Amino acid sequence: MAEEKPYLTGRTYIFRLPKGKDLLDALTAFCHDNQVKCGVISGIGALENATINFYDQAKKKYEKITLNQEMEMAALVGNVSIKDNRPFVHAHVTLAGRDGSTKAGHLVIGTKIFSAEIFIQELVGEPKVRKEDKVTKLQLWM
Amino acid sequence: MAEEKPYLTGRTYIFRLPKGKDLLDALTAFCHDNQVKCGVISGIGALENATINFYDQAKKKYEKITLNQEMEMAALVGNVSIKDNRPFVHAHVTLAGRDGSTKAGHLVIGTKIFSAEIFIQELVGEPKVRKEDKVTKLQLWM
Amino acid sequence: MAEEKPYLTGRTYIFRLPKGKDLLDALTAFCHDNQVKCGVISGIGALENATINFYDQAKKKYEKITLNQEMEMAALVGNVSIKDNRPFVHAHVTLAGRDGSTKAGHLVIGTKIFSAEIFIQELVGEPKVRKEDKVTKLQLWM
Repeated sequence: MAEEKPYLTGRTYIFRLPKGKDLLDALTAFCHDNQVKCGVISGIGALENATINFYDQAKKKYEKITLNQEMEMAALVGNVSIKDNRPFVHAHVTLAGRDGSTKAGHLVIGTKIFSAEIFIQELVGEPKVRKEDKVTKLQLWM
Repeated sequence: MAEEKPYLTGRTYIFRLPKGKDLLDALTAFCHDNQVKCGVISGIGALENATINFYDQAKKKYEKITLNQEMEMAALVGNVSIKDNRPFVHAHVTLAGRDGSTKAGHLVIGTKIFSAEIFIQELVGEPKVRKEDKVTKLQLWM
Repeated sequence: MAEEKPYLTGRTYIFRLPKGKDLLDALTAFCHDNQVKCGVISGIGALENATINFYDQAKKKYEKITLNQEMEMAALVGNVSIKDNRPFVHAHVTLAGRDGSTKAGHLVIGTKIFSAEIFIQELVGEPKVRKEDKVTKLQLWM
């Protein structure tokens, strides 16, 4: 494993996102507007509906899971890096229904916020840039 | 979306909570005793039992889910802000049973700690104050 | 509850772990190689398979859950402390299958990385040292 250089902590944000907005879109817009190019994200909240992806490692493509129901967002864990010269948010969410039963996966567009409380810690250092990894066909940090 | 001002990172805590205590109560007491008024919380552990809530977005009220069994606490994600002039902890938990199957939701009183390892990062800046949001009827940051 | 002293934030790392490696082994090696003795860890990714544990609180022993399938790693939440004079990683993972259904538990050896994006915040202060707790028989911070 290549030696890892430490990063410095940059700006620190805690805020809520507005009801009705798309969650991934709103997170990406925040990072773009504030020029957060590297960082970590976490959050909790509730969603009016959600769209998540599962990555099929053999077929090397995402499969979409559509959840047409209101759910608690038990956990959002993710990060910000650069893809195609722009801040790019990669986040996974754990969601819970009325009886507490859960679904989880890779957050994509198609997820409507009911409420969302978000923490972003900017990191300052060597930029993390996503490019297609030949083996996994994922967009990974090169 | 209103422009968000960055926060400064304040005190940083890592500690365990005692077996047998109520998890939400212990987190709230910690923030009160140490006057942590704004921050983020994460943690892992195990619980002797748990009580979580699901928010019914249409009826605008919480529904209680009682889990009378021991569970791993796979993730606690939350934050600290001010409600009624006091530090208030808002946390969601993801819990796992004997076969790894999960339940998740909004942590409430009625959750007994078996073990809990907690991280709190205090944030310093404009206070986040919860008040009832007219649309969602949730206590949100105004 | 004993009064908790704040920690200072030390080095901050964000990196990915290589495909094919054992997740817990790679995290532990990273902390050992970089001499991270105290800290918090979070991450997301995907796994080729996973092994997690459930702690039976009555019998006071771990039960192993083997997941012989590819899964999204929806959340990894954990910490680093000292056990037997070495950096020791304690992490819980929430995993999601093809239909988004989840399993979660205590991460153990036997978990193969497909991709993993990891954040580690080193903490500097009084060392956290794990020793067997007489009541729970867990290795807890004394």
